[in-house]
Amino acid sequence: MSIKAGIVGAAGFAGIEAARFILGHPDFELVAATSNELAGKRLADLYPAFEGVTDLAFSAHADAPLTSCDVVFLAVPHTAAIAQAPALVAAGVAVIDLSADFRLKDPAVYEQWYQVEHTATDLLAEAAFGLPELFGDGLKELAAKRAAGQGVLVGCAGCYPTATSLAAAPAIRAGLAADGPIVADAVSGVSGAGRKATARTHFCFANENVEAYGVANHRHTPEIEQILGIEGRLVFTPHLAPLDRGLLSTVTIPLGSNPVTQAQLDDLYCSFYENSPLVTVLTGGVQPKTSSVAGTCRAHVAAILNEHANVIVATCAIDNVGKGAAGQAVQCANIVFGLPETAGLDLIAIPA
Amino acid sequence: MSIKAGIVGAAGFAGIEAARFILGHPDFELVAATSNELAGKRLADLYPAFEGVTDLAFSAHADAPLTSCDVVFLAVPHTAAIAQAPALVAAGVAVIDLSADFRLKDPAVYEQWYQVEHTATDLLAEAAFGLPELFGDGLKELAAKRAAGQGVLVGCAGCYPTATSLAAAPAIRAGLAADGPIVADAVSGVSGAGRKATARTHFCFANENVEAYGVANHRHTPEIEQILGIEGRLVFTPHLAPLDRGLLSTVTIPLGSNPVTQAQLDDLYCSFYENSPLVTVLTGGVQPKTSSVAGTCRAHVAAILNEHANVIVATCAIDNVGKGAAGQAVQCANIVFGLPETAGLDLIAIPA
Amino acid sequence: MSIKAGIVGAAGFAGIEAARFILGHPDFELVAATSNELAGKRLADLYPAFEGVTDLAFSAHADAPLTSCDVVFLAVPHTAAIAQAPALVAAGVAVIDLSADFRLKDPAVYEQWYQVEHTATDLLAEAAFGLPELFGDGLKELAAKRAAGQGVLVGCAGCYPTATSLAAAPAIRAGLAADGPIVADAVSGVSGAGRKATARTHFCFANENVEAYGVANHRHTPEIEQILGIEGRLVFTPHLAPLDRGLLSTVTIPLGSNPVTQAQLDDLYCSFYENSPLVTVLTGGVQPKTSSVAGTCRAHVAAILNEHANVIVATCAIDNVGKGAAGQAVQCANIVFGLPETAGLDLIAIPA
Amino acid sequence: MSIKAGIVGAAGFAGIEAARFILGHPDFELVAATSNELAGKRLADLYPAFEGVTDLAFSAHADAPLTSCDVVFLAVPHTAAIAQAPALVAAGVAVIDLSADFRLKDPAVYEQWYQVEHTATDLLAEAAFGLPELFGDGLKELAAKRAAGQGVLVGCAGCYPTATSLAAAPAIRAGLAADGPIVADAVSGVSGAGRKATARTHFCFANENVEAYGVANHRHTPEIEQILGIEGRLVFTPHLAPLDRGLLSTVTIPLGSNPVTQAQLDDLYCSFYENSPLVTVLTGGVQPKTSSVAGTCRAHVAAILNEHANVIVATCAIDNVGKGAAGQAVQCANIVFGLPETAGLDLIAIPA
Repeated sequence: MSIKAGIVGAAGFAGIEAARFILGHPDFELVAATSNELAGKRLADLYPAFEGVTDLAFSAHADAPLTSCDVVFLAVPHTAAIAQAPALVAAGVAVIDLSADFRLKDPAVYEQWYQVEHTATDLLAEAAFGLPELFGDGLKELAAKRAAGQGVLVGCAGCYPTATSLAAAPAIRAGLAADGPIVADAVSGVSGAGRKATARTHFCFANENVEAYGVANHRHTPEIEQILGIEGRLVFTPHLAPLDRGLLSTVTIPLGSNPVTQAQLDDLYCSFYENSPLVTVLTGGVQPKTSSVAGTCRAHVAAILNEHANVIVATCAIDNVGKGAAGQAVQCANIVFGLPETAGLDLIAIPA
Repeated sequence: MSIKAGIVGAAGFAGIEAARFILGHPDFELVAATSNELAGKRLADLYPAFEGVTDLAFSAHADAPLTSCDVVFLAVPHTAAIAQAPALVAAGVAVIDLSADFRLKDPAVYEQWYQVEHTATDLLAEAAFGLPELFGDGLKELAAKRAAGQGVLVGCAGCYPTATSLAAAPAIRAGLAADGPIVADAVSGVSGAGRKATARTHFCFANENVEAYGVANHRHTPEIEQILGIEGRLVFTPHLAPLDRGLLSTVTIPLGSNPVTQAQLDDLYCSFYENSPLVTVLTGGVQPKTSSVAGTCRAHVAAILNEHANVIVATCAIDNVGKGAAGQAVQCANIVFGLPETAGLDLIAIPA
Repeated sequence: MSIKAGIVGAAGFAGIEAARFILGHPDFELVAATSNELAGKRLADLYPAFEGVTDLAFSAHADAPLTSCDVVFLAVPHTAAIAQAPALVAAGVAVIDLSADFRLKDPAVYEQWYQVEHTATDLLAEAAFGLPELFGDGLKELAAKRAAGQGVLVGCAGCYPTATSLAAAPAIRAGLAADGPIVADAVSGVSGAGRKATARTHFCFANENVEAYGVANHRHTPEIEQILGIEGRLVFTPHLAPLDRGLLSTVTIPLGSNPVTQAQLDDLYCSFYENSPLVTVLTGGVQPKTSSVAGTCRAHVAAILNEHANVIVATCAIDNVGKGAAGQAVQCANIVFGLPETAGLDLIAIPA
Repeated sequence: MSIKAGIVGAAGFAGIEAARFILGHPDFELVAATSNELAGKRLADLYPAFEGVTDLAFSAHADAPLTSCDVVFLAVPHTAAIAQAPALVAAGVAVIDLSADFRLKDPAVYEQWYQVEHTATDLLAEAAFGLPELFGDGLKELAAKRAAGQGVLVGCAGCYPTATSLAAAPAIRAGLAADGPIVADAVSGVSGAGRKATARTHFCFANENVEAYGVANHRHTPEIEQILGIEGRLVFTPHLAPLDRGLLSTVTIPLGSNPVTQAQLDDLYCSFYENSPLVTVLTGGVQPKTSSVAGTCRAHVAAILNEHANVIVATCAIDNVGKGAAGQAVQCANIVFGLPETAGLDLIAIPA
């Protein structure tokens, strides 16, 4: 099958990673990669990893044949997806949005956290949430619509929400959580801060440093609460650490008075993900390492019973740009096009 | 003043850092640095940072003039300090123990977490706890004993306990914490794993990786609970990140129904540490960075009110080997010898 | 086609990377991965990058069905390949040796640099040199023998020789080099030092450090001289830098009195590699970056005319474990089995 | 003694490092730190390493009391020092210039490499060259002038010229070098690229990467040739590696027909630097490590005889911002003010 794919915002880290996954995909064909800033330059000029791989050049957004694509990945800032998605969907394109625009189901919550009005609420209502392991049904419904020739839209989960939710969902959905705050302390590599050169992304400031940021006000908070159904209870604190790719979320979930054993917890998690080929549950005290999934769309998850304080400590490691963005977008597209979920996503991290 | 100082276990990271601080100290003179493994080699042979600085050689433990030292720093594994401290104290030496042997006040707790009997419980009862900002009175009492010619013992706080407690103590001691788990997720650089070459400390396994470890069973748990008086409530999860020096602890403290404002929180923290020259409280939303304190004995602290989930998120950055070990040991020694607390500890981190 | 592949010494960095390439290869099937030390453990136990990918376990060398493999990769220390290769070749296996045992054509040179007698000189004489871009004919001859059912042996080039020779060969073979020393200063990531945990590979010693090593006596010297035909003229100085994967060799070649232009140099290099799909020549002043080829079997090469001192400065970036070891081994195996040279080697580095 | 010191361009890496050294200096007092961009902000706002150390704020250049300083460090881009130095010298200030403006003795060479006219050639003729170990006499002459109340100017050596020259000078000055190219391949940490956030300094592009840059045209070429007296013979190729601080220069020097032994070479180097307290010669095959001198003004040097190719391979490790810029500037100032050369420069690198 040859499915024509376009990427809007292909010069950023998520966009170019989508290009990498698509170029290695057996069924997708990359026909357009837009960047108004870099139009005319080859992908390889900016990212020499593509030297000898492709001579495709960035095109200006206005020049790209997006409406003739089968699938378009929007790797754009929030509000830009609201501006672009409706016309593409109307043109019958399957739109996979990596921005935050179509994640929050309640427009009021979107407007509260992003400080801008949501002007595509009809499309928002129709959009599927792009986190296949937790919301696979919605994606499969899109596959039916897509097979019937309709345009569809997926609003992919963010990087922190993906890791945090994969760690916590089995326990939360099983009703194990008692009242009280659920604490997610997550650590991301610097690629999470984007391609723009800033003081934050400067090697000399990022290297040999760990710090928290966005404390008490990070925009992924409502998204995680929506996914897990824990509105008002999440304490989400992201941190920056000196690595390129990788995101680890450590979630502490208070337990109630009904005891659970470590073995039960392991069973619960293994069962929960048994049909999820890209999520691996680690047991026996093994902890997820971000290096094990770097450059891939895989997730490693573990859940440990902390009897001392009567909580579960669940952890999930992903590549923030892979499973946390571009890889997950391709995974969603696979489902929408009726392909195996893992098509083009069988990469293995450099062993470490 | 020339105070003769010895270091037992000088080849490890804490021991050699103590050597660095002592060599730059205006009043201490390094007269012995022991390492049975490396006896006869110069410090500079193992750590070429000392080339052109000192030709001092490691001596075998049995050969070192420890009882004629004024102060001896024990940078040894637990149980070794129990074995060595009594004779040194009896000889009138001020012993600054960096191991875990004299931290936990209840020998039963020590024996539970370290799986070994405590055989120096009398000395344990006399030992001061080495975390000057929180237990300065005990150290000042030792100064009086020392001035009277007696041997004394300080059991210095561990690296995670230091950062976690400095972050949380102002809020906890002010009675702000409601019931429920207190979650400390901390991230340490690889030096925290020690000088021994292992799979964990191998560059290719540590680099580009973040992972949790010791989940639900790390031995610093009871120490932090003792310091803060929160027995049975602490969820402590340490993590490893790819940096050499640095430790950040992020502590989430549930609040009760009495509201507190961010301004009150800032005031509380600033007041708490106003007489602590090595602790700086950051306000205005600025978060501590480990790079700002690397190579020093300083600590940076911030406390943020998270109204969304009604918690405080308090953070503290230290150098795990500096304020978290060797620097704090020197700071304690300064107090014991009646010197300015910051003597020899005025180093500034490489600006970043 | 299903070609049964075995790896001897699969637990080390080169061996496990061979496993990664083979698991992603369309025609090879990994049937054995030996490690006496780790027999019974899954590859994923040691390298969790394989979690969710394969449950294959390491087998003891004696238990592995190596003689029934079509191809066996020897990722073993030198002398071990001499011990193992003859029986495998005799059994009709295509042996791809990653060690140094079958690289140096003159046994006396081997014995001089490795301080051990070469006891398989007949096989040495038959072995092809595994650096396809420079010695493709020899590999193609093996393909014919292999097609005729015979066992064959490839002695793959080392990591430094690969990068250094790819940088210098076009200029040297074109006769541009004048008399005098040819200087190759190369920088390698820490994976080049192997999986063993040592002081050298300890994160805290490798991080934030660059140093030269093996100055004037590195064993890759005679291998590079043999490849380039510059016996006695090479000054080879390797360096260690704080990265995991990557090797850059910078080769300074003195020019004679016949002037060459930059354009001629570019043409020479582009022509030289026009049929080498895994080597890309960068022109226009663009320099190779190791990050562009990390995790792949690709090489990036550039040659700059330095008119000021009348030399060529040629550079080549590879992944020391990829094109420098396991990837090149698979590339050689592809040729031996008549497959496209790039089969299983179309990975793209993480864009950077 | 209290010597009033000002820093122009204090927000950059060299300027702020000068601030760090001055704040720890027993005789200098930092009275002004200029940055037009950041005027009014505290040094600690930009570099929180100064939190708890100083509340000094950056001042606008026009507002700073520079002419009333005893010493002013110019940490400015080239041409800016030409603009500022004359008035300061005329006002009797000791000016220590860290830019390239007063390094090249021949204005024509400056104009050739920097593409701008030198408009302060009188001052250039008077300036001392700031590399104390090789040009100490010139600095001592300034000390006499300074003692007599005159303004003076030092043009400090660049980072690459410092390391490269310290490595090569003993051999070159002893006449050991034969004809032919002298090859200096040097590797620098990212701080060498300055504080500006660019694609080059972005963590995700710099991390896990080594590359050459400025090949055949780096402006430090004529400076090194001037220092060593090897005009037209230097092949200088700088490289970037993923570390913050550190610079290693590896210099290959062809030997003539008169043999030299390793022991003679060691003696030569040790004698050469026996009165240079900040340079340590390593013998016995030990190679300089950049980590051993990070954050300091020290240099480690070794020279190895490579008999195979009849060359010397000399290496020198420095901190590019320390001995390569700010530290050396303070060292020069110390000499100019008649202080011990090492005043304020006795820092020891973090042991590694």
